[in-house]
Amino acid sequence: MTCLTRRYPFSASHRLHTDRLSAADNARLFGKCNNPYGHGHNYCLEVTVGGEIDPRTGMVVSPAALDAHVRRTVLERLDHSNLNTDLPEFATLVPTTENLGLEIGRWLRRDWPQICRIRLEETGSNSIEIEFHEP
Amino acid sequence: MTCLTRRYPFSASHRLHTDRLSAADNARLFGKCNNPYGHGHNYCLEVTVGGEIDPRTGMVVSPAALDAHVRRTVLERLDHSNLNTDLPEFATLVPTTENLGLEIGRWLRRDWPQICRIRLEETGSNSIEIEFHEP
Amino acid sequence: MTCLTRRYPFSASHRLHTDRLSAADNARLFGKCNNPYGHGHNYCLEVTVGGEIDPRTGMVVSPAALDAHVRRTVLERLDHSNLNTDLPEFATLVPTTENLGLEIGRWLRRDWPQICRIRLEETGSNSIEIEFHEP
Amino acid sequence: MTCLTRRYPFSASHRLHTDRLSAADNARLFGKCNNPYGHGHNYCLEVTVGGEIDPRTGMVVSPAALDAHVRRTVLERLDHSNLNTDLPEFATLVPTTENLGLEIGRWLRRDWPQICRIRLEETGSNSIEIEFHEP
Amino acid sequence: MTCLTRRYPFSASHRLHTDRLSAADNARLFGKCNNPYGHGHNYCLEVTVGGEIDPRTGMVVSPAALDAHVRRTVLERLDHSNLNTDLPEFATLVPTTENLGLEIGRWLRRDWPQICRIRLEETGSNSIEIEFHEP
Amino acid sequence: MTCLTRRYPFSASHRLHTDRLSAADNARLFGKCNNPYGHGHNYCLEVTVGGEIDPRTGMVVSPAALDAHVRRTVLERLDHSNLNTDLPEFATLVPTTENLGLEIGRWLRRDWPQICRIRLEETGSNSIEIEFHEP
Repeated sequence: MTCLTRRYPFSASHRLHTDRLSAADNARLFGKCNNPYGHGHNYCLEVTVGGEIDPRTGMVVSPAALDAHVRRTVLERLDHSNLNTDLPEFATLVPTTENLGLEIGRWLRRDWPQICRIRLEETGSNSIEIEFHEP
Repeated sequence: MTCLTRRYPFSASHRLHTDRLSAADNARLFGKCNNPYGHGHNYCLEVTVGGEIDPRTGMVVSPAALDAHVRRTVLERLDHSNLNTDLPEFATLVPTTENLGLEIGRWLRRDWPQICRIRLEETGSNSIEIEFHEP
Repeated sequence: MTCLTRRYPFSASHRLHTDRLSAADNARLFGKCNNPYGHGHNYCLEVTVGGEIDPRTGMVVSPAALDAHVRRTVLERLDHSNLNTDLPEFATLVPTTENLGLEIGRWLRRDWPQICRIRLEETGSNSIEIEFHEP
Repeated sequence: MTCLTRRYPFSASHRLHTDRLSAADNARLFGKCNNPYGHGHNYCLEVTVGGEIDPRTGMVVSPAALDAHVRRTVLERLDHSNLNTDLPEFATLVPTTENLGLEIGRWLRRDWPQICRIRLEETGSNSIEIEFHEP
Repeated sequence: MTCLTRRYPFSASHRLHTDRLSAADNARLFGKCNNPYGHGHNYCLEVTVGGEIDPRTGMVVSPAALDAHVRRTVLERLDHSNLNTDLPEFATLVPTTENLGLEIGRWLRRDWPQICRIRLEETGSNSIEIEFHEP
Repeated sequence: MTCLTRRYPFSASHRLHTDRLSAADNARLFGKCNNPYGHGHNYCLEVTVGGEIDPRTGMVVSPAALDAHVRRTVLERLDHSNLNTDLPEFATLVPTTENLGLEIGRWLRRDWPQICRIRLEETGSNSIEIEFHEP
């Protein structure tokens, strides 16, 4: 099996906060990420598709088709957004890198179960990775 | 003259918008950066000090002193902030990379006129640079 | 098991095109990569060797021996080459990142089956990865 | 004066060779870059515009207008091209990083003399930089 | 399972040498890394924790707690150290990237067995990776 | 004038310490960099040559000649060295990035006064830059 990975940058803002905890607990748990008006990041999403190489095209997947899928499913929702305000998913769910990655994986794999891994960088020092097993 | 440069990352969110223009003109001018609820970036600030090397220490400037100055003057205000909401400077001034760089330069050079250049990266593809001439 | 990975940059040109398809289908499938006279990339190859650490040397493998193997087997063939014209392997096989990775893996593992993974970057946004299982 | 810099990646192939020299002299002068069928690079172009910040927009230049100018003037010609074959400019001129930079500067500044610097990376270890003085 | 990875840079010096071998064999095996007075690197450690996302916090692990653990267990010992001289572990063990990684893994996992992978970069071209399986 | 810049990585160790100061003052001034047994870095040197483009070769300078000059003059002395112990220049001079850059510039320009700028990175966050004016 050969895995192809493509990278997609996007910019977004967020605030880490949950109504299930007191203000003091939120501050303790999330630190500066709990600042009231939010802050932001240049995120970078890596999407991996695994499979056999098509002998006719020499490709595991059409990069143009993958790019279009990621653009429509992820980037149009997230790029230049405020995660807490613009995404109904994060009305109650805390937009940590982990939860954001889980949601992105769910969106991407609904129509493309051959996506087998995503990696999401929030900063150069903080990233998450999720492997999926079909279907 | 030898120039020493140190890099400082910080995360912030902003919205590009000016009340001097109509909603349509704001959208045309700033594009996605005008999205109502803002978005964010991992900024990276480079601060350059030029001068003679002190023969005793072998340094142009104490890195610890420069770091403390940048932390107190810039990072404590900007890191994990919403530029439009948390910084009075940007109540009316549009928080573009250019204007943010100008403000940072003003803050940094009030006490340290030996700072001769700043460079501010908003993303890996967009940065500004300002050179200063003493005093 | 400990895995050691070393990186090797090289530069090459290629054109994505297959005689099995019409000119129109080639253009649709490969886009700009089908331009008649080719284009090129700064590739970066990562080679991973897994194994036990030799208690005497503290190493999984001698880096000098691995470098010599990669130089002779891969870099001397590919660096500063035109993949389509200089490599008989790509007379009929499309030199996509996937196929190039498969060939490199085949060359490298003929004498060194302990190589357990390769990763090949074509650009900062496009890479492939292949894991191997001995022998 | 504030300088804004934006980065633009593109891929191209080339061969360093001049008909003014013998085959042996070409080989000695250009080394592997003289290989007959060419090789390629992921180039990265940085374009810098210097000027006053427009007090209304907070910008030195509209990034969208600069991007459109660079796309039309440079990227549409060079991206995924073979410099020697596809560009009449390099029918006789050797497509070194220096000459490519000079041509790019000429194209860009014909309509935009406010462009004051370009930097062109051929690899992470080789780049050129040209400063311009108006007009 | 979701994996969270955080990066930690540190600087250290070392000399690759073992008393079990002759001077000539040390020189042949370790090359320039056997130079008598040592040399150094900007190392970068990546620490990965895998687990379920806590539904209350949206996190696999508290980044602040992980940072404190890595700082106390690894960085305070290694940053700005001479591995051969300052670390009793390397009095007889050769401080290769492999052995250094093994030691770091041992230190980190004594109290945190949920750490499932570490990756240690010695230079941009040389790194090791170790996966762990609980407990 | 066109400037060509090439990058050269090397690894070295050092200790910041001066006999002109007390132990306490050394510790206060240099912090962790004063640790008795030293530490190290992956340095990266950038060397810039400015000049006219030779119309025959399309180059400001022969990269092969520049590489040979830097290798012989700088890399063979510094790579995998302990700056304090292996370099007589730093028997009394503190091997800060500034002093190391000054020495490198002196070595490089003795025979090549057309070198007009060097930049020396000690870490990704600390670098120095020196411009030279002929002769």
